[in-house]
Amino acid sequence: MIIVLKPNISKKDENEVLKEIKKLGYKPHVMRGVERTVVGAIGDERTHTSLEVLGSWAQVESVMPVQKKYKLVSREAHKSTSIIKVGKQIIGGKKLQIMAGPCSVEDEVQLMKTAHAVAKAGATILRGGAFKPRTSPYEFQGLGEKGLKLLAKARRETGLYVITELLSEAHAELVAEYSDILQIGARNAQNFQLLIAAAKTGKPVLLKRGLSMRIEEWLLAGEYVLSNNNPNLMFCERGIRTFETYTRNTLDLSTIPIIKKESHCPMVIDPSLGAGRADLVVAMCYGAVAMGADALLIEVHPNPAEAWSDGAQQLSLEGFAKLMEELKPFIAAAGRE
Amino acid sequence: MIIVLKPNISKKDENEVLKEIKKLGYKPHVMRGVERTVVGAIGDERTHTSLEVLGSWAQVESVMPVQKKYKLVSREAHKSTSIIKVGKQIIGGKKLQIMAGPCSVEDEVQLMKTAHAVAKAGATILRGGAFKPRTSPYEFQGLGEKGLKLLAKARRETGLYVITELLSEAHAELVAEYSDILQIGARNAQNFQLLIAAAKTGKPVLLKRGLSMRIEEWLLAGEYVLSNNNPNLMFCERGIRTFETYTRNTLDLSTIPIIKKESHCPMVIDPSLGAGRADLVVAMCYGAVAMGADALLIEVHPNPAEAWSDGAQQLSLEGFAKLMEELKPFIAAAGRE
Amino acid sequence: MIIVLKPNISKKDENEVLKEIKKLGYKPHVMRGVERTVVGAIGDERTHTSLEVLGSWAQVESVMPVQKKYKLVSREAHKSTSIIKVGKQIIGGKKLQIMAGPCSVEDEVQLMKTAHAVAKAGATILRGGAFKPRTSPYEFQGLGEKGLKLLAKARRETGLYVITELLSEAHAELVAEYSDILQIGARNAQNFQLLIAAAKTGKPVLLKRGLSMRIEEWLLAGEYVLSNNNPNLMFCERGIRTFETYTRNTLDLSTIPIIKKESHCPMVIDPSLGAGRADLVVAMCYGAVAMGADALLIEVHPNPAEAWSDGAQQLSLEGFAKLMEELKPFIAAAGRE
Amino acid sequence: MIIVLKPNISKKDENEVLKEIKKLGYKPHVMRGVERTVVGAIGDERTHTSLEVLGSWAQVESVMPVQKKYKLVSREAHKSTSIIKVGKQIIGGKKLQIMAGPCSVEDEVQLMKTAHAVAKAGATILRGGAFKPRTSPYEFQGLGEKGLKLLAKARRETGLYVITELLSEAHAELVAEYSDILQIGARNAQNFQLLIAAAKTGKPVLLKRGLSMRIEEWLLAGEYVLSNNNPNLMFCERGIRTFETYTRNTLDLSTIPIIKKESHCPMVIDPSLGAGRADLVVAMCYGAVAMGADALLIEVHPNPAEAWSDGAQQLSLEGFAKLMEELKPFIAAAGRE
Repeated sequence: MIIVLKPNISKKDENEVLKEIKKLGYKPHVMRGVERTVVGAIGDERTHTSLEVLGSWAQVESVMPVQKKYKLVSREAHKSTSIIKVGKQIIGGKKLQIMAGPCSVEDEVQLMKTAHAVAKAGATILRGGAFKPRTSPYEFQGLGEKGLKLLAKARRETGLYVITELLSEAHAELVAEYSDILQIGARNAQNFQLLIAAAKTGKPVLLKRGLSMRIEEWLLAGEYVLSNNNPNLMFCERGIRTFETYTRNTLDLSTIPIIKKESHCPMVIDPSLGAGRADLVVAMCYGAVAMGADALLIEVHPNPAEAWSDGAQQLSLEGFAKLMEELKPFIAAAGRE
Repeated sequence: MIIVLKPNISKKDENEVLKEIKKLGYKPHVMRGVERTVVGAIGDERTHTSLEVLGSWAQVESVMPVQKKYKLVSREAHKSTSIIKVGKQIIGGKKLQIMAGPCSVEDEVQLMKTAHAVAKAGATILRGGAFKPRTSPYEFQGLGEKGLKLLAKARRETGLYVITELLSEAHAELVAEYSDILQIGARNAQNFQLLIAAAKTGKPVLLKRGLSMRIEEWLLAGEYVLSNNNPNLMFCERGIRTFETYTRNTLDLSTIPIIKKESHCPMVIDPSLGAGRADLVVAMCYGAVAMGADALLIEVHPNPAEAWSDGAQQLSLEGFAKLMEELKPFIAAAGRE
Repeated sequence: MIIVLKPNISKKDENEVLKEIKKLGYKPHVMRGVERTVVGAIGDERTHTSLEVLGSWAQVESVMPVQKKYKLVSREAHKSTSIIKVGKQIIGGKKLQIMAGPCSVEDEVQLMKTAHAVAKAGATILRGGAFKPRTSPYEFQGLGEKGLKLLAKARRETGLYVITELLSEAHAELVAEYSDILQIGARNAQNFQLLIAAAKTGKPVLLKRGLSMRIEEWLLAGEYVLSNNNPNLMFCERGIRTFETYTRNTLDLSTIPIIKKESHCPMVIDPSLGAGRADLVVAMCYGAVAMGADALLIEVHPNPAEAWSDGAQQLSLEGFAKLMEELKPFIAAAGRE
Repeated sequence: MIIVLKPNISKKDENEVLKEIKKLGYKPHVMRGVERTVVGAIGDERTHTSLEVLGSWAQVESVMPVQKKYKLVSREAHKSTSIIKVGKQIIGGKKLQIMAGPCSVEDEVQLMKTAHAVAKAGATILRGGAFKPRTSPYEFQGLGEKGLKLLAKARRETGLYVITELLSEAHAELVAEYSDILQIGARNAQNFQLLIAAAKTGKPVLLKRGLSMRIEEWLLAGEYVLSNNNPNLMFCERGIRTFETYTRNTLDLSTIPIIKKESHCPMVIDPSLGAGRADLVVAMCYGAVAMGADALLIEVHPNPAEAWSDGAQQLSLEGFAKLMEELKPFIAAAGRE
């Protein structure tokens, strides 16, 4: 921690600060500059009480942390890139993985038709919401366990693995029973109890970024998974809230190189929510692949105009197959398979 | 719903849109303007499937909802202002209620000392966190049930009512047993399962605004409480995330007149988190009272510099007593008691 | 400046950093912590080249400034609160000043009617736009010099002083000839050439905060006025852009205590743009007065429904007179006149 | 315009709204829905007074525009993609154009060395700031005319065309004399007088997006250029302000497909400011090319660690040459040259 003192404070006031720093277990180190005196507090910021409280002292101007708060998710802690095994597939390896499927599981016909189509076009993982978090209590909340059973059936029939959202601690075991990857949605990105419950199932966890989350907060949320003994964490950017009204969210592709620099965990891009419009999803996928994403999570629906939730952002089956073809030169350019 | 068509589309394309609108249960009403044709879709937007999906159709430029999505929290549904009874106290009545106490319950001495002091200075409700949501898994997470028991003891000794945070569905009954008001924190403001669990305890619920939440989303989150048969909801502004770095959050006092216009539920202001600095809390309280807040939620600590969490934003016992005195002329000017 | 080095770098890499720090004129001071080595660079950050460039060096993790960049606007540089004389009126003194008038000057009848009404209700300064910055080139851009002449006529007839916006360097002398205070609008808050031109006229300058400006940037923009030999600067908060859609902007009243703490310059609140709706302006004014604003800048129009620009946010003459009455208890509570 | 009336208003109140709509030159068209009555106002929203003022009427709930406000920049007005000729080069054609050079022109050696190196590596346009907008008055403000002359010399020696920033109306002719493209910076993106002055020089204009600008506002700012008889406009994304602190700004690559859909003007990406760190620029360039950018604007410096401004985000000469090689497969994949 670095503590910047106010200019022209008395020796007595300065000593009080130094005393408190020592009391909290740090060793103070004083540097006198031209206009300000700065105190470095030597000690492990993660195991000691935070010194941020000093920021409210009359003689202190600001307090700045020096260490990064995240540890297990950081590349410092784990130099090599982590890979996550999902059955026979590897996320974070040379092969770009495609997770595709409808926003919500609606019925058997819709899901099977979509599952067969995305498998044929090259996807390896089936996405589909059985429990849906909806802004309004009057909107469709998902089929629940019935939806999970349909996903399991689609897995049996197509060989696709399954990713679906977990939104209640109370469902953790149930969802883990039917799903190969647990998805934590943006609105629950700092629902730490849910993260712990997800981690404890032992299944791989895909953690979406919150709507206005800083990358440091995202990494720390991921730390809740790894520190609960689950190493199989992947991050997923799905768009942040900005002032823009043209799209629902702004997909932040710069998270790809940043997360890869700061963390060893694989990085997934979900362009559907970020674009909020099917006609922009394609360009987002090109960019994501070029910038090094390990996997894409894409909403696909047999009849987007009839989808029960978020229809505007889902590709048709034909649109998805076309996208898979068009992605090939970018996958090659990025040195992926 | 209003559907704006693209300019110069064919009659056939237009008819397809009209057909889909009818299929989804609305009655289309066509208006031809100078550059655009606009279709009004007559029907209840809350009970029918959303037409937003039309936004992805090639012939549609935009889709705009006309109705408000929230219902039970709205002033339209309930013209008179709601009051919430907490024991002998009323929130939303003529009396300005003061909820005060430490950010976290740390130990018996700290809590009792604070409780007695805030009661003496005029507070009627004791706040204190027993379960704390922390950005990092390595920070102090609260005393848990032990903290709840200390709160209950403070209630017995001082006559203050208790408000404390609920952050896990699994704790709903436990926390409700010890607390008079359940607080839902900003990070859980769209944790809809937690809102339902809180509503079902029957206790009054204080819903903090999420860090980047729109007022419409906040009202809809509140709708989850009322639609689960709990009419005792109050909203609490605690600061939104902005680009500003001087304070941790930006307290949005304009929520007071807006929530009072849109909703019948009482409005509480928590200036401590918004200011992030004890030295700004006082001015925030003046403004909140002048603008019509029904209650204030204030962090107070016997020794702010030693607080285990968020010390920088807590008032000392003396600071709190002084604030209570200074508020008097503003309470009178606002026509409150 | 504080330079945080990456963990486990070689002695040689560390020395290169120290060498560069010396080369740029600072004296390096090394502190070895538990996980990181931190270097304090002693020297005046305002007169030396910035060390921020070190942030891109492979061996450096982050660079943090210690000094504040603003100087003349700061309270450190000028302990007592500045007052600005505008004719016989004082801004920043005990008297709360009211600046009121239409968003745009439309014609003589509209302006004179408004000027007489606001003067009668207690305003001392007349606002009115002659040059209007408009998002679209197809919107009304103001009457220009004709508008300035009408403002001058209103001043002669009513004794009110005049504030109007300057939006082009080329108009600086012209606008200064007719106006007692020059207003710099939010979109030009970092148009530094315009700030310099305004400062050089010698007239008091009211600097609105930019739509997404940090307080530090605002203070630095003000520094362009004071460092061009014009001490008569006041800051004006008018609402920042947030995600909220209920109001056009979010009025940040916390700027009042913050600016008063950091700077000696007077602080003005413009609630009209922040609220974006006349029906919220009244509550905003209560809050602004309670929190210590030195002046209010209020849009008033004889017939708001016919206003040529921004009608939705203008009070009627009757609404303004009523507000002036209602403000009295809050002015008294705040210890102002 | 669509005007949504409040529920349950009287016939008389409704008629007043209809009367006002007619008075302002529109033809009202009433639609009665389940809970709301909606009025369509038929008429050209660009030539008539705005009806937004009705939003403040007691009987009106909201007012929604139907038409887009921009016209000349829109693809509706100009179906084919515009190309801009800069000497022998074309921006917006099949060839990806590279604009490269230092943030600021510092001296002859620095500029010539950079110009020769970027020309050799494949750039066709030289960037370099002679007038620099700086947040603080105490930072380096650029070499001014001397810098322009050095740019002209570099053009003669290397055959590169020149782009440089215009930041004062007073400099328009001077800068146009030395430069092939005029750059309008983010802080001046809504300095409409500057946009008009730039347009009138007749030189191509590159308009950067403001820090918190919506795409509609950006297009409207561009409309100021085209409506002043200058068809040679290109848009340039350089990163928007978000809550993220890891990078200085967040580069919004989704602007590429959006601007190309809404407008016929070419689209340029400046990754240097968005990344704020040289080590992220490379990945941003891959993404920009994959998503269809027409040109890249890249900061390059012979010795980034010594740059006088924004050093942290400039590539070295070697880094730039390497990037140009690495871009090749992505350029091919995107079907460009």
